[in-house]
Amino acid sequence: MSKNLTKRSEDYSKWYNELVIKADLAEMSGVRGCMVIKPYGYAIWEKMQSELDRMFKETGHENAYFPIFIPKSYFSKEASHVDGFAKECAVVTHYRLKNAEDGSGIVVDEDAKLEEELIVRPTSETIIWDTYRKWVQSYRDLPILVNQWANVVRWEMRTRLFLRTAEFLWQEGHTAHATKKEAITEAEQMQNVYANFAENFMAMPVIKGTKTETERFAGALETYTIEALMQDGKALQAGTSHFLGQNFAKAFDVKFTSKEGKLEHVWATSWGVSTRLMGALVMTHSDDKGLVLPPNLAPIQVVIVPIYKGEEQLQMISEKANQIMNELRIKGISVKFDNRDTHKPGWKFAEYELKGVPLRIAMGPRDMENGTVELARRDTLTKEIVKQEELVTTIESLLIEIQQSLYNKAKDYRDQHITKVDTFEEFKSVLNDKGGFISAHWDGTAETENKIKDLTKATIRCIPIDSIEEEGICVFSGKPSSKRVLFAKAY
Amino acid sequence: MSKNLTKRSEDYSKWYNELVIKADLAEMSGVRGCMVIKPYGYAIWEKMQSELDRMFKETGHENAYFPIFIPKSYFSKEASHVDGFAKECAVVTHYRLKNAEDGSGIVVDEDAKLEEELIVRPTSETIIWDTYRKWVQSYRDLPILVNQWANVVRWEMRTRLFLRTAEFLWQEGHTAHATKKEAITEAEQMQNVYANFAENFMAMPVIKGTKTETERFAGALETYTIEALMQDGKALQAGTSHFLGQNFAKAFDVKFTSKEGKLEHVWATSWGVSTRLMGALVMTHSDDKGLVLPPNLAPIQVVIVPIYKGEEQLQMISEKANQIMNELRIKGISVKFDNRDTHKPGWKFAEYELKGVPLRIAMGPRDMENGTVELARRDTLTKEIVKQEELVTTIESLLIEIQQSLYNKAKDYRDQHITKVDTFEEFKSVLNDKGGFISAHWDGTAETENKIKDLTKATIRCIPIDSIEEEGICVFSGKPSSKRVLFAKAY
Repeated sequence: MSKNLTKRSEDYSKWYNELVIKADLAEMSGVRGCMVIKPYGYAIWEKMQSELDRMFKETGHENAYFPIFIPKSYFSKEASHVDGFAKECAVVTHYRLKNAEDGSGIVVDEDAKLEEELIVRPTSETIIWDTYRKWVQSYRDLPILVNQWANVVRWEMRTRLFLRTAEFLWQEGHTAHATKKEAITEAEQMQNVYANFAENFMAMPVIKGTKTETERFAGALETYTIEALMQDGKALQAGTSHFLGQNFAKAFDVKFTSKEGKLEHVWATSWGVSTRLMGALVMTHSDDKGLVLPPNLAPIQVVIVPIYKGEEQLQMISEKANQIMNELRIKGISVKFDNRDTHKPGWKFAEYELKGVPLRIAMGPRDMENGTVELARRDTLTKEIVKQEELVTTIESLLIEIQQSLYNKAKDYRDQHITKVDTFEEFKSVLNDKGGFISAHWDGTAETENKIKDLTKATIRCIPIDSIEEEGICVFSGKPSSKRVLFAKAY
Repeated sequence: MSKNLTKRSEDYSKWYNELVIKADLAEMSGVRGCMVIKPYGYAIWEKMQSELDRMFKETGHENAYFPIFIPKSYFSKEASHVDGFAKECAVVTHYRLKNAEDGSGIVVDEDAKLEEELIVRPTSETIIWDTYRKWVQSYRDLPILVNQWANVVRWEMRTRLFLRTAEFLWQEGHTAHATKKEAITEAEQMQNVYANFAENFMAMPVIKGTKTETERFAGALETYTIEALMQDGKALQAGTSHFLGQNFAKAFDVKFTSKEGKLEHVWATSWGVSTRLMGALVMTHSDDKGLVLPPNLAPIQVVIVPIYKGEEQLQMISEKANQIMNELRIKGISVKFDNRDTHKPGWKFAEYELKGVPLRIAMGPRDMENGTVELARRDTLTKEIVKQEELVTTIESLLIEIQQSLYNKAKDYRDQHITKVDTFEEFKSVLNDKGGFISAHWDGTAETENKIKDLTKATIRCIPIDSIEEEGICVFSGKPSSKRVLFAKAY
């Protein structure tokens, strides 16, 4: 398979799809809309999981596991929730196969019909709140701070690797609280955890804000979001945290006796990020040569490629490489020595560029003589000669520098792509010519929001939390507005 | 809820179920046969996962993720495989809900029928081998050493928490090799990894062996198993590793060009352990007071309970407790300080006995004066007074001692419950009076195996790998036999 990718400037969408496949991140399976996450892609996801899991535990959460199936009757209990998900539910109706009587093969056994159909969870609020009813009697049982790592299924018609798949992996936190205030604080805290993760690990700047009513999670009173900007000027919702009020507690009759002895409904939040973040990571940093991975999430941070003729040279280089690997590993740096004799150095260079390994060391006989190595940075595609005795400290500081530099570069791009507009003409021309976020006044109605969406495909990504009060008029309706919101076309 | 459990001697099965629920490990959900794994139970599972995952990676495996759905046609491709699983498959037939036209609520949208029904994976050989076809062309692409952590569904009619549930969590390794020999070596290696994990982390002795043809995995040429013995004399299959030959490669047309340029089918293994191990852990060590957890898998290894009257005493004890916690944590020991004022010390003692925390420290004002603490062992229910300055070293060595002691105790019990018998009368009386493994000669036929099962409910758990060649006659048929096998009633 050729390592050459379509250029981003030619066809960004095609570039993305080729890159995900050629860099061995994922591929579509034989099952409609479901992907296979390949080992290299999964290794990145594991690093994401591990950091997020640590952050969840540091903020007092525990993991648990709830059933993948939800009885249809549970699912229907919260009215706006079922409205939001009903059209994309996979439904289990039977539980057995049998041999066809006409000998044509294996068929579904129609006699083994379920009494009640089961929904494959698209999200778990309903089954979890049905469980919490049994866990909560008194204020002493609160808060419940639980997260689960799980697969979920949403029957999407148009799918794209990582960004929109019928099955995806995610975590979903579901918390229960005695007071409204505590639940809101939790939802806001988790938005901050997500923003922290996106910026410090993914090197991806995000804007924190709240969703409009139209864009809220089905069943939420408030949805907190982090929004990122991809290199093609489209926004990507990278994580959401929902204040659910007492909606699910009422639907599932979850009450507690307060300190004051009163019977009250419990307050809820839920929050999640998914394998969609893999798509965001790819589209934030990568280039026409392949992936660019931030060191904090790269499964391999440093690769060593030997350049040699004959067994003797290889052995000499291997000894030095092993020594370097040991020193790097002591520092907690992950390193791979690619001494395969089935591929040439040039092929390997292209391979690790494609896979986004942050630093590449090349070592040949000349380097052995001079006590040097060639060190190449993936993000800048620059090379330098480094003395072997300075290599480990150079690598340590470079990994930190690369992480910061990727963030800065993405932030510069993002900041340059937030454009204030005050007329709808301007709105449309910026959207088409430049893309990115458009900061504009909006009259606060769903009607205007929907009309703008129909005309331009741009949606309100969020009402930024740092949006300042400002007199203005709606860019579309001309009605008064007191705050700018961010519009964009989005993934 | 009362902490008192039914005694094991009265009703082992009832004791088990009560313990799993009261110790907050798991509970049945509102979905038939599906359990909720509660935070404390999941924390134990996470420790299991973390150790197993490390062992898999140390033996060269990588994680990946494959779809939860399997098209019915894939599933049917390997004949003995579909025979083995068809009767317990959950089948997705539709992908949308809608409002009922008669206003009766939400119903399955019959217009949204899938063209091909999907099976919710009971195991993933078929979808994975359909994928491997795309990954393998040459011997250079082999071996593939992949594992996945996933949920699977088998529509069991009689379910029990952890031991047999419709949905369960597991890992499934699926490897592809160029030669038969390499595949067999892999299957044997993973049996050893499982045995190592069971013995060194679960403190659960196991017998390594192979399954008879009747008991083999559907589609395997050889199934390697580890078999444990529970306290009620019943065996539990704790992990299996399968040599699959070329069955799946042939069914899914997975071929490679060998070094010699010949086109050959790939050789396969698969191997798995599941949340069933949680049931095995409970039933191997626990007692009438509750869980007994081996220190290597205990989420909390040490708990500190303060005994105090008034705020001043609590503060003094808390200071000391914090100091002890810091010292223990530096040693990598997990410790919890339970300073809740909502429960009395006696209640807490019972609680941590129920939850199997290996060591409990109690500290009161007298201890503060004397520079001591009371240290209680969960496994032996013994207490000693320990000087505070010796506490950390005492705990370090006790945790090691407890781990070893639990293993020894379980092994003694197991060894005492392997009984050699030479007649069928003896077979039946040992099975009924004493239980455990019965070591007996068997003529090697499925007919005899099935008859013994029908008459006694005992099955051949395995042909032990250390079984020696020995002249004998089958305990049932009187036909000649050259090896003893192990029979038992099993979970």
